[in-house]
Amino acid sequence: MEKFLIFKSLAIIIIASKLFGLGARKIKVPQVAGEIFAGILIGPSLLGLVQYSDFLGQMAEIGVIIIMFTAGLETRLSELRKTGIKALLIACSGVFVPLVLGTLLYFAFYGAAPFGSDDFYKAVFIGLILTATSVGITVEALKELGKISETVGTTIVSAAIIDDVIGIVVLTIVIGFKDPTQDVGHTLLMTGLFFVFCIVFGIIIYKLFKIYDRKHRHTRRIPIIGLALCFALSFVAEKYFGVADITGAYIAGVILSSLKDSAYITRKMDISSYMIFGPVFFASIGIQNDLSNFNTSIILFSLAFVVVGMASKVIGCGTVARLEGFKGMDALKIGCGMMTRGEVALIVAQRGFSLGILDSSYSTAVILLIIVSSVVTPILLKVLYNDKNQSNKEVTENVQS
Amino acid sequence: MEKFLIFKSLAIIIIASKLFGLGARKIKVPQVAGEIFAGILIGPSLLGLVQYSDFLGQMAEIGVIIIMFTAGLETRLSELRKTGIKALLIACSGVFVPLVLGTLLYFAFYGAAPFGSDDFYKAVFIGLILTATSVGITVEALKELGKISETVGTTIVSAAIIDDVIGIVVLTIVIGFKDPTQDVGHTLLMTGLFFVFCIVFGIIIYKLFKIYDRKHRHTRRIPIIGLALCFALSFVAEKYFGVADITGAYIAGVILSSLKDSAYITRKMDISSYMIFGPVFFASIGIQNDLSNFNTSIILFSLAFVVVGMASKVIGCGTVARLEGFKGMDALKIGCGMMTRGEVALIVAQRGFSLGILDSSYSTAVILLIIVSSVVTPILLKVLYNDKNQSNKEVTENVQS
Repeated sequence: MEKFLIFKSLAIIIIASKLFGLGARKIKVPQVAGEIFAGILIGPSLLGLVQYSDFLGQMAEIGVIIIMFTAGLETRLSELRKTGIKALLIACSGVFVPLVLGTLLYFAFYGAAPFGSDDFYKAVFIGLILTATSVGITVEALKELGKISETVGTTIVSAAIIDDVIGIVVLTIVIGFKDPTQDVGHTLLMTGLFFVFCIVFGIIIYKLFKIYDRKHRHTRRIPIIGLALCFALSFVAEKYFGVADITGAYIAGVILSSLKDSAYITRKMDISSYMIFGPVFFASIGIQNDLSNFNTSIILFSLAFVVVGMASKVIGCGTVARLEGFKGMDALKIGCGMMTRGEVALIVAQRGFSLGILDSSYSTAVILLIIVSSVVTPILLKVLYNDKNQSNKEVTENVQS
Repeated sequence: MEKFLIFKSLAIIIIASKLFGLGARKIKVPQVAGEIFAGILIGPSLLGLVQYSDFLGQMAEIGVIIIMFTAGLETRLSELRKTGIKALLIACSGVFVPLVLGTLLYFAFYGAAPFGSDDFYKAVFIGLILTATSVGITVEALKELGKISETVGTTIVSAAIIDDVIGIVVLTIVIGFKDPTQDVGHTLLMTGLFFVFCIVFGIIIYKLFKIYDRKHRHTRRIPIIGLALCFALSFVAEKYFGVADITGAYIAGVILSSLKDSAYITRKMDISSYMIFGPVFFASIGIQNDLSNFNTSIILFSLAFVVVGMASKVIGCGTVARLEGFKGMDALKIGCGMMTRGEVALIVAQRGFSLGILDSSYSTAVILLIIVSSVVTPILLKVLYNDKNQSNKEVTENVQS
């Protein structure tokens, strides 16, 4: 009966994450970077205050599931229908180009590998990490500039939502392929069946939920049953279809995203997430990060990874936008707006580590990409818009946290 | 890597707890009773859908800590000062009489035991479970009757708050005594030192928090740092003073209870609690409850426990109220209002189980007491007030859940 020992770890994780998260915000770096740094600091690499444990791992996993569920909940399917084919093509290219360039980057550093080999999957996974745009920082920057509701702004937001969906599908297929016990045909079949199941099950659940939600708007039961659905679909995905649990959680969010109460569910999830599960997840990345693995090769790779990660989105999204008739400057703005990466990139990387596909030393590269892209994007957008109206900047900075 | 398996358990626990919790509400029984029943149903005793695991135990423990923290946060120290000595004496008697009668009840069933023996502690623990009033249901009943702000109402609320504090002190001392490695003097010393530490540390933390809170009212950091304090004090209590972690959590709540933002912190804690940790705690009581332990002796003891539990509060609180000058009818109302038990009784019982003092089969008695007292109290109060104004009853019933 030493259950109380975990409270020490939790207290340290929560307080350190919040302090460094706030510190990161102050210097205009994403909070998650601060939280990961807090994890490195308190973990075995430096202070040794907190050790990684099965329990923390399990809590972190719940954190991941809740983050993916929330990401799904924020999908606006109706908006996607409106922006239509243009954003879809930009998103496709914004997934495809980083995936290919990321794969090639790995080959360039460590040599090409034949299709299906372990090294091949490593390379593809590096590309996969680069696929998911995290549009939050871009949205904030565009709001500051007062440009969020212009065509460029809405196109970026729509494309970023679609590239999450496409990214999840690609991730699902790649992880499926990697399972050594299954052949390619079986994997494709199960993945296909899973998405068919999700569409059929999703429509039924959505209809039921809609009726229930209308009757019990803004009551506790709505987010609670939503969370149960999220856990259930995560479990079913892994257990019966061999599909990543994060895919299940994300789709559970998408299913509920068109509910009138979806923002209400998101809010309740956010609180559970930022109070305890989120900090545990981000800090645990730092805690698991062994600094002694650090070497020149990793640093060089990380720098190249950041450059390729940012350039590939600009090329992928910008080129297609230009071909679709956007002016050169606007196409560039769209490309730059799609550059930012965030939590999802980390979660994909973590999945690679836990499946044994990637070595955890690559997390340095991912963290660096998140920091650099989040710092550079708002600056670049400001330059591109060449805009001087910073009037409402102060207001948005004081947002709660 | 079978982390996703826990999602199945969580999904089942969350959905079953909510359904049976809502069902319990419908038939005017406390929600926690429904959640415990859900646990029995899905646990190994019946359906076998969920097995108890270390992870669930740890999650339940976090749930307990958050519930105790919230209980502490709801303490209104300023109100206590106002109602003063009358409520204090009622509370003291309301702790003392049930403690003694509960102990005697155990002796009556299983024979008297000498001071300091295992059976003696068992008996005292049975008494201890009876000490904490859970005033929520009484408050709701008094609100329906429109009597909450009259002297009887305010006295009940104040006495219930004070009896929590006294109950926690008694619990702390009893658990301290039970530790076989420590002698009586050492236990008393450490318990005393702990409370001195809490007062000194509490005042410092409170002052710092107050300044910080004034600067950052209603920002996420306030509940987050509060939760960290709760975990930290829970850990420090057990680790350095040999005092129960729930005492630490409760005191952390009391320390922050006078903050302007205490209701804000409570709200955020409530959400984390009802979304996941609370259901896991209550359901896990049911999951651990082995129905095959059921026998006539336990049933008889449980019935006697319920009668003694309710009568002892009426006697203890009512007599002192009468002596203080309350009219006979008002004294009876106060006694009846103090009868209800809730989560804290369960948490004390769980502590007894996990310390090996009590056998978990006694949880039946506790659950029964919670259900019966919560159902009987509102009815009795209505009869005692002999009141017909049920006008706002419908409104309060539709409260969110």
